Amino acid sequence: FIQESMNELYPADIANVLYELDDDDARYILGLLDKETGAEVVSNLNAYWRADFLKDFDSAQIAQFINYIDSDDAADILNEQPGKVREEVIALLENREKARYIIDLLHYEEDTAGGLMAKELVKCNINWTVVQCVDEIRRQAEKVDRFNSVYVIDDQGILKGRVSLKKIVLSKANTRVSDIYDDDVVSVESHQLAEEVADIMQRYDLESIPVVNVRGKLLGRITIDDIVDVITEQADLDRQAMTGLSGDTEDDDTVLDSVKARLPWLTIGVAGSLIAARFMGLFENEIILAPALAFFVTLIGGTGGNVGIQSSSVILQSLANKSVLETSTVQRLIRVLLIGLLNGFVLSCIVFAFNIAFGTDLRLAMVVSVALISVVLVASFTGTVTPLILDKFGVNPAVASGPFITTANDILGIAVYFMTARLLL
Amino acid sequence: FIQESMNELYPADIANVLYELDDDDARYILGLLDKETGAEVVSNLNAYWRADFLKDFDSAQIAQFINYIDSDDAADILNEQPGKVREEVIALLENREKARYIIDLLHYEEDTAGGLMAKELVKCNINWTVVQCVDEIRRQAEKVDRFNSVYVIDDQGILKGRVSLKKIVLSKANTRVSDIYDDDVVSVESHQLAEEVADIMQRYDLESIPVVNVRGKLLGRITIDDIVDVITEQADLDRQAMTGLSGDTEDDDTVLDSVKARLPWLTIGVAGSLIAARFMGLFENEIILAPALAFFVTLIGGTGGNVGIQSSSVILQSLANKSVLETSTVQRLIRVLLIGLLNGFVLSCIVFAFNIAFGTDLRLAMVVSVALISVVLVASFTGTVTPLILDKFGVNPAVASGPFITTANDILGIAVYFMTARLLL
Ligand SMILES: [Mg+2]
Ligand SMILES: [Mg+2]
Ligand SMILES: [Mg+2]
Ligand SMILES: [Mg+2]
Ligand SMILES: [Mg+2]
Ligand SMILES: [Mg+2]
Ligand SMILES: [Mg+2]
Ligand SMILES: [Mg+2]
Ligand SMILES: [Mg+2]
Ligand SMILES: [Mg+2]
Ligand SMILES: [Mg+2]
Ligand SMILES: [Mg+2]
Ligand SMILES: [Mg+2]
Repeated sequence: FIQESMNELYPADIANVLYELDDDDARYILGLLDKETGAEVVSNLNAYWRADFLKDFDSAQIAQFINYIDSDDAADILNEQPGKVREEVIALLENREKARYIIDLLHYEEDTAGGLMAKELVKCNINWTVVQCVDEIRRQAEKVDRFNSVYVIDDQGILKGRVSLKKIVLSKANTRVSDIYDDDVVSVESHQLAEEVADIMQRYDLESIPVVNVRGKLLGRITIDDIVDVITEQADLDRQAMTGLSGDTEDDDTVLDSVKARLPWLTIGVAGSLIAARFMGLFENEIILAPALAFFVTLIGGTGGNVGIQSSSVILQSLANKSVLETSTVQRLIRVLLIGLLNGFVLSCIVFAFNIAFGTDLRLAMVVSVALISVVLVASFTGTVTPLILDKFGVNPAVASGPFITTANDILGIAVYFMTARLLL
Repeated sequence: FIQESMNELYPADIANVLYELDDDDARYILGLLDKETGAEVVSNLNAYWRADFLKDFDSAQIAQFINYIDSDDAADILNEQPGKVREEVIALLENREKARYIIDLLHYEEDTAGGLMAKELVKCNINWTVVQCVDEIRRQAEKVDRFNSVYVIDDQGILKGRVSLKKIVLSKANTRVSDIYDDDVVSVESHQLAEEVADIMQRYDLESIPVVNVRGKLLGRITIDDIVDVITEQADLDRQAMTGLSGDTEDDDTVLDSVKARLPWLTIGVAGSLIAARFMGLFENEIILAPALAFFVTLIGGTGGNVGIQSSSVILQSLANKSVLETSTVQRLIRVLLIGLLNGFVLSCIVFAFNIAFGTDLRLAMVVSVALISVVLVASFTGTVTPLILDKFGVNPAVASGPFITTANDILGIAVYFMTARLLL
């Protein structure tokens, strides 16, 4: 019964079921599936979970799965395993072509085009006719899941273009490939970063993209499903970086891993606050004179941090979407300061009304509101400028901006606040 | 010369060039392109920019473009225009089939499967042979850009499955479609949300997905390039929401739009800080007794906010990726509190060492460190629980968590700090 209901499900869904089971049950269920479905389930598993799960399988069993898995995923699976297992599995593969594919793919960095590509693709020679091409498709198609065009190469294996399956279906048998192929194909080189590939595929609305070496030789192809995963992972990482989590944090990390991911930014924040504390020490007299001054430190520092993060986030986004129209830095600054002035004014009025309503000393109420509007302006400026400067110096601004901007604006906010107090009180 | 170099470029790149020009020059360049390329450029333009740019064209010119644009993008373009222009353009379309397609698509909500689908697709009847199928492909293929499978329907138009182009190429002419088609096709209903469609296409690695109505009738198809755009936009919105920007903020919004997007969260933050200020007022005596107490308010409130955001971000991510293994809430809480205890301990030690080194009063140093570790624990708890509770009540936790958690932890942090001070000083 289990067997039947499982073979009805899609592999991606079976993978989700396995996560809920303990290792022994999961292994049992996997064994019930037909070999091909089982292999697809394995290639759909989450990398962390899989690396651990496959420890209980011997190399021959892993090789059984690998026989049915595309070379890109096969290389990933073997890269998760210790070197010994990796070599045993490759030696045990029945399909020697796949073994060669995998050995070739193991060399590429994970986050490059080479690390994303599969060797399985359908290609034909530019000098062939459509009939020869269909024969070749017949020969190669078995190993390639889905394709809607055939890549066209010359005798040296250099990528010349592509011809769509549609055109092949609709052409006469003796038409030459050279007469119907499209020489205008977008490709990437194997060393290009995954993010660049994602940008290109998104910009040109591609479903797959050929990968070439520096001399233009066709090496493999990347399909959009793997790029969708790259985009989603990148968005998760960005989101985590913004909240001060370093590295690739997963819900099922060990406690110590989580501590390590969280401590760095917390420590930076604490260090910033300690500097702020020392700085406030210089104004101890003001606090003794007007203890109520202390009540609004959070308001000033917090608003500064929030405004800074908002401003930086808009800049980060336009740095990320290079496609967005570029206004000059000066125009942008004027715009940001204008927004800050308006926001600061509204907030200052709210705070002033509140302070008057609750009987705060009038002079103190003025200090708070004047400081608030100044802080909003300063934070609008630093929030805008910091990512631009980090970007100029080649630091990834998405990662570094958050901690830096929050901390800087806490300190700046307090400085502005107490200077205003010294001037006006 | 311009004409030649432009016709060499991809439409997506020409679109980017147009943004840099003023409207007159952009219109001139667009006029130089051949009709089909021009239309592709228009369909690649950013919606905001395009809505404004097309105001200077008359309905007949817009209809010229629409003739070459897929029905999904055509419907989007016309939806950006005033009703009068929309009706004129539809009336002027030479291609009456496209006109019917567009009229049909105008009815669907933008963020549903219906709003994403195109009517252009290739379908064949389940009772046909492969030859009939190829004839139909020949007839339909001209209007459909890329497809690697043909949808199979019955006499009532109900979706029965799909057959891949690969299979058609490799099958004998008199094979019946019913013998080779795959009945196991994933489809979505037209009312399903764009995000659900994105989840499904990503989970099953699909390049296109058929859209059906509630009775299973084939209505259209969604291609992955449009889903990639949905995923990217969603990630941008999430990132903005996290930094307290409401709505769909663009770099080229007007100043007033930007003020409106930023003010709501800033106001919530200010309101929270004002409550915190009132609360601190209750402890004015402690501050008069030990003004140095005030120096560490930022440290306590800030660290609380940071810890809360980190904890919530991990939870938000596992709420978003439903695929991640679910541990029970109690287990999760224990784990989070353990991480908090370790982080809090390390930070408290750093702060204690700092305070001793800089000659802070020993009792005050102890108050700060005890309060800090308590605040980290409290913030770990609220950061974890808040998104779970919001999610239970059907509020989108990604949007509401950030402001709420920061503000709550500012206030809670100050409360914990001053209570500790009252107890220990
Ligand atoms: Mg295990
Ligand atoms: Mg790889
Ligand atoms: Mg695109
Ligand atoms: Mg498109
Ligand atoms: Mg793949
Ligand atoms: Mg994949
Ligand atoms: Mg803060
Ligand atoms: Mg204009
Ligand atoms: Mg639409
Ligand atoms: Mg996928
Ligand atoms: Mg796959
Ligand atoms: Mg489309
Ligand atoms: Mg589109």
